[in-house]
Amino acid sequence: MQKSMLRIGIAGMGVVGQGVIQILQQHHALIAKRAMPIEVKAVSARDASKARDIDISAIRFYTDALDLAKDPEIDVVVELIGGAEGIAKMLCKQALLNGKHIVTANKALLASYGIELAQLAAKTQTILAFEAAVAGGIPVIKTLREGLAANRISEIQGILNGTCNYILTDMEASQRSFQEVLKEAQSLGYAEADPTFDIDGIDTAHKLAILSALAFGTKIELNEKAIKGIRTITTHDIMYAKELGYRIKLLGTALQKSEGIWQNVGPWMVPSTHPLANVPGPQNAIQLQGDMVGPSFLQGEGAGRGPTASAVVADLIDIANHRMTKPFMVATEHLAAAPLVNNEQAMMRYYLRFEVSDITGVLADISAILRQLEVSVEIILQKPHKKEEPAQIVMTTHRTSHRMIEQAIEQIKLLPTLIASPQMIPIM
Amino acid sequence: MQKSMLRIGIAGMGVVGQGVIQILQQHHALIAKRAMPIEVKAVSARDASKARDIDISAIRFYTDALDLAKDPEIDVVVELIGGAEGIAKMLCKQALLNGKHIVTANKALLASYGIELAQLAAKTQTILAFEAAVAGGIPVIKTLREGLAANRISEIQGILNGTCNYILTDMEASQRSFQEVLKEAQSLGYAEADPTFDIDGIDTAHKLAILSALAFGTKIELNEKAIKGIRTITTHDIMYAKELGYRIKLLGTALQKSEGIWQNVGPWMVPSTHPLANVPGPQNAIQLQGDMVGPSFLQGEGAGRGPTASAVVADLIDIANHRMTKPFMVATEHLAAAPLVNNEQAMMRYYLRFEVSDITGVLADISAILRQLEVSVEIILQKPHKKEEPAQIVMTTHRTSHRMIEQAIEQIKLLPTLIASPQMIPIM
Repeated sequence: MQKSMLRIGIAGMGVVGQGVIQILQQHHALIAKRAMPIEVKAVSARDASKARDIDISAIRFYTDALDLAKDPEIDVVVELIGGAEGIAKMLCKQALLNGKHIVTANKALLASYGIELAQLAAKTQTILAFEAAVAGGIPVIKTLREGLAANRISEIQGILNGTCNYILTDMEASQRSFQEVLKEAQSLGYAEADPTFDIDGIDTAHKLAILSALAFGTKIELNEKAIKGIRTITTHDIMYAKELGYRIKLLGTALQKSEGIWQNVGPWMVPSTHPLANVPGPQNAIQLQGDMVGPSFLQGEGAGRGPTASAVVADLIDIANHRMTKPFMVATEHLAAAPLVNNEQAMMRYYLRFEVSDITGVLADISAILRQLEVSVEIILQKPHKKEEPAQIVMTTHRTSHRMIEQAIEQIKLLPTLIASPQMIPIM
Repeated sequence: MQKSMLRIGIAGMGVVGQGVIQILQQHHALIAKRAMPIEVKAVSARDASKARDIDISAIRFYTDALDLAKDPEIDVVVELIGGAEGIAKMLCKQALLNGKHIVTANKALLASYGIELAQLAAKTQTILAFEAAVAGGIPVIKTLREGLAANRISEIQGILNGTCNYILTDMEASQRSFQEVLKEAQSLGYAEADPTFDIDGIDTAHKLAILSALAFGTKIELNEKAIKGIRTITTHDIMYAKELGYRIKLLGTALQKSEGIWQNVGPWMVPSTHPLANVPGPQNAIQLQGDMVGPSFLQGEGAGRGPTASAVVADLIDIANHRMTKPFMVATEHLAAAPLVNNEQAMMRYYLRFEVSDITGVLADISAILRQLEVSVEIILQKPHKKEEPAQIVMTTHRTSHRMIEQAIEQIKLLPTLIASPQMIPIM
């Protein structure tokens, strides 16, 4: 007998959890027509009495999320607790073991244990769905797994963290420093109290690892050696970028190469006419390259209550419509190993900025080091500066290998006139 | 018992049909892992001996497409014949009646008979899939139907015809006339020998009607009164647009309004910083607005062998994976009527261009008519011109109602110094 209703439990009553309940209430009739009625049977959170703008008084309340996994009235557990370890992981495993489907927005958990959970889901014939884990407002998981399923994907590049994109956009618009803009983003709720995961690129790396596994049919691997954030970006960099015809964006990049997968998270100089350069504020965007479809570009809100809840509910509608899908498109035993390759051989152009106490001589020293390592300079910008401020020397290079430029930077760092660590950003 | 193979028949062996066979051959193992093996059991075309770059000699060949509907070895018929009537329609109906699924790229057929076919599919418990019918390289059908299923969509606007976008892009780049660029597009295979469907906006209108029904949950309606193409766009328009900070794009627009649905196909002046303005060559792009997800933007190849075949094969993979979906997201009996509303009350800014034999006096006449109808002018451009060429007067207006601007144009047309029909393009 077909069930006539999908019964869910939600673990975590933060903004996204409340957003899910709001959509299910507001669009109850619409969703019933598009699939079947979806009813919230229970929720869990640490504090029952906390003020919320959604009335949950009529819904069964657990303070222990693990109780959701045992509740016989629940078909699907929506996991919105977050974190790679602890209660979130226990809940997902227990729910799958008990034959309940999991819908999760937890990229950290998936980046670490996605394959393990997918194996468990296969064993217990349950669904593990995670559209909300990457770029909430953009159905990129579905696009990769179903929409472009006829393709071999060779390339993914995207803006996957709304907080970083908000900060970089605002630094350009307001000409304020990273620290000032971060503080404001925190007060507006665009950045967490502890912003490390976002601004140091870790959140982007988690999402990239998930997309990379899906796109290339490999196990999930995090390339921890190639994660850079945006802490070191200064207003100088933002303004020089503009002057040179670029905009700085934190990108996650994954390329399928013959010898393995190249994964990288870091700031890039993106040509100002490129679609990725024009993704504003907290939005996300992803560019894909398929062998049959060619280039594909998706842009939308990356996170926040509405977009993330929309992705969660889309997964619930898929489950209600019996649209079963293997979490990583192929059975986990078919996922290949993902040998990560480094980018030492990658030939790229670079933007370099040196903060120096004294121009005289240092330009010659820098140039000599670059010449010796065969890094050829394209443009040098050196502008008059206020007496009390350090001088900035900005260069762009011709195409050069990562190994050479790294060596050059190491040597330049030793020059006594340098008063800050050199800035180095690849040019797209 | 689950079947271990999906057996298909393909009607139509043009570029897309050959593209489908190529993908199924080239990615046979990949698709088997992602779903199950998909085997082409039969094809149909008018001429068996025609030279093709895919070897189909080992595949059963019918000259009558209707034979595919009867072939007991076929689970899915891929309809790539085209046209709203005739053999394509008969084949689809017969196949569905015989319990076979249909995958089609035929937007003309769907725009006219989509609901009828969806009803038939519901009755016979078969699938009607048509990702390839709109914007081949962009999985917009799946995005609307599944990815954004938690949303009420209020707005769709897009570049849905690659031929028109190619012509408009090339007219700007090469500064050549519409006729010259069209002729070249035909010789390159970007435009049909009879280009009417594309350049007069009919193809865009078909696709828009399909998207509109899906997005708004209504029956498919074509607003035949609001379809304009790009035949009248001159190099003057292209250049003036650039000077004013716009780019001319042929857009399909569908808005859900309280009193009904506003559907419109025609050229627009798109601000040059807008993502839609920067969609190059034969690409397509679609902008959506959902109540939960906010704005969503998708861009990719619109048509051609690879992208369209990719969309066909994605539908086949969905079928192989038992991802059943109601063609229009809800059961056809739940599709509301779609009362089309006109845009007489819509307030917009307009670009106007008048080709006149003599400037003296005519500017005063035009201005008097506009003033009388309360159309307020924002900018007037009137440049020195060669003696032997007619003068061009270009204006942009402030926001004004469609009714008023139409009346003004009707009166201006009667002025004796006008030597061509006035150009009028709304500004986004």
